[in-house]
Amino acid sequence: MKKSLLALAILGSLAGVAQAQSSVQIYGTVDAGFIKRTDQSMAIGKRANNTLGFKGTEDLGNGLKALFQLEIRYEPDTGTIEQGAGGIQRPLFQGQSRVGLQGGFGMVRLGRGLTAFQETSTQFEPFHGVPSPAGFQTDLTVAGYTSDPLGMIANSTNRFSNALFYNSPEIGGFQINTTVATKESNQGVAIIGRGTAAAPQYGPSAAASANPYSVSATYKNGPVAMMLAAERNAVESELWSIAGSVMATPALKLMASYTAQDQEHTRLLNPETDSWVVGANYTMGPGKVLIGYGQKTPDGIAKTKQFSIGYEYSLSKRTYLYFDASNKKSGITATNTINIKHYAVGVNHAF
Amino acid sequence: MKKSLLALAILGSLAGVAQAQSSVQIYGTVDAGFIKRTDQSMAIGKRANNTLGFKGTEDLGNGLKALFQLEIRYEPDTGTIEQGAGGIQRPLFQGQSRVGLQGGFGMVRLGRGLTAFQETSTQFEPFHGVPSPAGFQTDLTVAGYTSDPLGMIANSTNRFSNALFYNSPEIGGFQINTTVATKESNQGVAIIGRGTAAAPQYGPSAAASANPYSVSATYKNGPVAMMLAAERNAVESELWSIAGSVMATPALKLMASYTAQDQEHTRLLNPETDSWVVGANYTMGPGKVLIGYGQKTPDGIAKTKQFSIGYEYSLSKRTYLYFDASNKKSGITATNTINIKHYAVGVNHAF
Amino acid sequence: MKKSLLALAILGSLAGVAQAQSSVQIYGTVDAGFIKRTDQSMAIGKRANNTLGFKGTEDLGNGLKALFQLEIRYEPDTGTIEQGAGGIQRPLFQGQSRVGLQGGFGMVRLGRGLTAFQETSTQFEPFHGVPSPAGFQTDLTVAGYTSDPLGMIANSTNRFSNALFYNSPEIGGFQINTTVATKESNQGVAIIGRGTAAAPQYGPSAAASANPYSVSATYKNGPVAMMLAAERNAVESELWSIAGSVMATPALKLMASYTAQDQEHTRLLNPETDSWVVGANYTMGPGKVLIGYGQKTPDGIAKTKQFSIGYEYSLSKRTYLYFDASNKKSGITATNTINIKHYAVGVNHAF
Repeated sequence: MKKSLLALAILGSLAGVAQAQSSVQIYGTVDAGFIKRTDQSMAIGKRANNTLGFKGTEDLGNGLKALFQLEIRYEPDTGTIEQGAGGIQRPLFQGQSRVGLQGGFGMVRLGRGLTAFQETSTQFEPFHGVPSPAGFQTDLTVAGYTSDPLGMIANSTNRFSNALFYNSPEIGGFQINTTVATKESNQGVAIIGRGTAAAPQYGPSAAASANPYSVSATYKNGPVAMMLAAERNAVESELWSIAGSVMATPALKLMASYTAQDQEHTRLLNPETDSWVVGANYTMGPGKVLIGYGQKTPDGIAKTKQFSIGYEYSLSKRTYLYFDASNKKSGITATNTINIKHYAVGVNHAF
Repeated sequence: MKKSLLALAILGSLAGVAQAQSSVQIYGTVDAGFIKRTDQSMAIGKRANNTLGFKGTEDLGNGLKALFQLEIRYEPDTGTIEQGAGGIQRPLFQGQSRVGLQGGFGMVRLGRGLTAFQETSTQFEPFHGVPSPAGFQTDLTVAGYTSDPLGMIANSTNRFSNALFYNSPEIGGFQINTTVATKESNQGVAIIGRGTAAAPQYGPSAAASANPYSVSATYKNGPVAMMLAAERNAVESELWSIAGSVMATPALKLMASYTAQDQEHTRLLNPETDSWVVGANYTMGPGKVLIGYGQKTPDGIAKTKQFSIGYEYSLSKRTYLYFDASNKKSGITATNTINIKHYAVGVNHAF
Repeated sequence: MKKSLLALAILGSLAGVAQAQSSVQIYGTVDAGFIKRTDQSMAIGKRANNTLGFKGTEDLGNGLKALFQLEIRYEPDTGTIEQGAGGIQRPLFQGQSRVGLQGGFGMVRLGRGLTAFQETSTQFEPFHGVPSPAGFQTDLTVAGYTSDPLGMIANSTNRFSNALFYNSPEIGGFQINTTVATKESNQGVAIIGRGTAAAPQYGPSAAASANPYSVSATYKNGPVAMMLAAERNAVESELWSIAGSVMATPALKLMASYTAQDQEHTRLLNPETDSWVVGANYTMGPGKVLIGYGQKTPDGIAKTKQFSIGYEYSLSKRTYLYFDASNKKSGITATNTINIKHYAVGVNHAF
């Protein structure tokens, strides 16, 4: 059969498949373990995010590259797409979905992914950003801030949809990362804010009242790394953060971060929240100890205080076992707190 | 460990994996850009469909091949599976899901995919069938026709589910493509048609009242290509179409199409719609100019008139930048129209 | 561009991708055919499950391996994720989502997959466990039992979520397979059971009242294979099963199974169900004949009786055509039955 019109039609949309083949990388992680919390029965669940991704780069010549990355997120204990609050499924490519160009000017991408602040800050968190309650990233490192308050219900809180991502090259140890989103609506639920239930400040499927943006600047000099970051979301909550780390010895990394959030645009009372986290990672042969302590001070409610210790034992470069123990006291009212202990043991396998 | 019963059970369902490995191709496209419409704020979105596909062929000997293709469609700006009206997610393999055999007799496939008409007609559309409002395919080329009126809500309008697809070999420049679907119900919503809200012509989850079919015949002779097509959907709307193209010079492709739809089976008033589109593609080195003009005449409403110009600049065989500008006047009533300008700039990367 | 902090952040989560690449296998099946039942119009659908999977193993040294498997299930006739009752979509990785370790001790995995009984029993079913009504697995082989009564609505009935899977090595022809699940809730619907509509025995999103478990023991000796299995689900329905097969000649496999279910924990009346199935597979060159007969005796309702014959013709090791004919009489009341004939012809392609 010669190449017919229809065959050309089918092939047309796939131009370059033959060349492209070698460049699509499939990667991912599977993380599952036993989890015991003081207030819940034994469960099987995750410590880190579970991913199945597809990515590639194409050399365009003259140092220019095209690149894309699509990352599925899922729950291995139930087989579903990653779930948010109430078991609601998040987007298929919850991890990220971006396309862009890279060259001497840095990297420009369009799509959806972690904001500059959210992505950079994981480098200064003692549990390298895992969403487990044993880690600090999700609650304390970000001072309770959410990057996407107008996104679809139960969606991720640390990403921008409809965004332009720019990462500068690193010059003299300095690098700038920025994320700017459009004001587009994304089928979000209403936010009462300074309005009323009848007339919420942001109605259902509201558009952003200002362009959300996120900036992180980093500096690296030998064993020292630092970050300064600022972000504003679609309902004009503002955040700034400073963090640093130092390799005190080749085996010991010390780190600290401070973050402040201002929700004045949507809150009359208690608009200020701040938090700090200190931690250490100590490597001993195939094992690594993770230790952290942090506090969050929401204006008007008792402080959150968390202490966590973890141990990761590498079976290979791609596979490790982990053991976590954590104690967290969270404020409910100005004087009342709730105390939850969290234990986990499991396996993390990258492919 | 010897191969146990259970191991055999597990392996049994994957027979031939070892041989199969080399034959699975991963392919796709990521398309994202900035979009500005006269009636909306700046947005980030797509111009072309975004795909992530898996396909393969197996040589069965004697010129016979088995083949399959599974194609995910998604939205890179939000990371979700492709969304239809109201943000409702379409099927995971919205692109297509088909399995079949190919040989001297042509190609036979079962599953879900574009109908013969919908697939062939993109060859005669000046924006090669992209769903962007700058293109003509979605609205004008098909004269407002939908191939799947009884499909799930917000589903694609140019595919058949539960269908048999046959493409003949090309003989003397001629080829015939046919698609026939069963009458099975697909959880669709009710269509009032010539009935009433209380007694709709097609109730919820209605079966087709006749087998949907689609036929396209093509003829290719040197620089000339032509198409003649007819289709009938599950509620017996009928369509026919004629189209042609000519490579006037090696760099200049001229094309035109005419399509008529008859919805007499479900409409008392104004059952006739027809449309025509003319266009040109002009290639200049790595750049290509796309120009088109078209009109749609729905009986009883003012004409739709659209003019679009686009420019595609190839960075490689797999990656191009695009710039579109379009002006569309659509009829609302017999005398009133609405005018929308559409601008887009973005990148399309195939992998 | 040197590796910046952010680049390290991005790369960090993908550690080992380079080494991993070679180990991810993509595999799957596409099965589609024409189906005619006495009580329905001609349809296009599946006979076997349709899968698209990703799996891999990593050699950790000393005979130890890490392994993972993620298996998408879908419907090729409509392009959707696999659908349960009412067209409701099941989890993305409906096939399985598991990670674990394998060594001299056997195989340990965490996640979601077929229970030990459900997986082993397919080896003794004349249609090798296909979900088609022509097969016996889904209804008769399991005596109407469901492994996951508290799972999400329309979910699979033969899997455990939140489970630990252990398969022993085969020693002297013996092997033990076990699955144990936590009591975690999975957003299931209420089960009235021995309660009332107002006070169901298991409320919405109920936790299991006991840890679900499944055990299958197998013995293999030359042409003979045997299975003994027991299982208890989250609402304490209990099942036990015995099955055996023998290769009477190199081309003829004979098999039989008996299964009993006790639903006393949730039913006052008629808690007992038992079933038996006998069958044969006969191979002739590229063709294989499948024959089976079985009965199910639910206490208080007329017996279910099913006879099925199938023929599979291999075009290659990965692709076969199939032809099925089946007659099933099912009890509606103590004396009334309904009789359904089922015919199918289609193609199954593994990749």
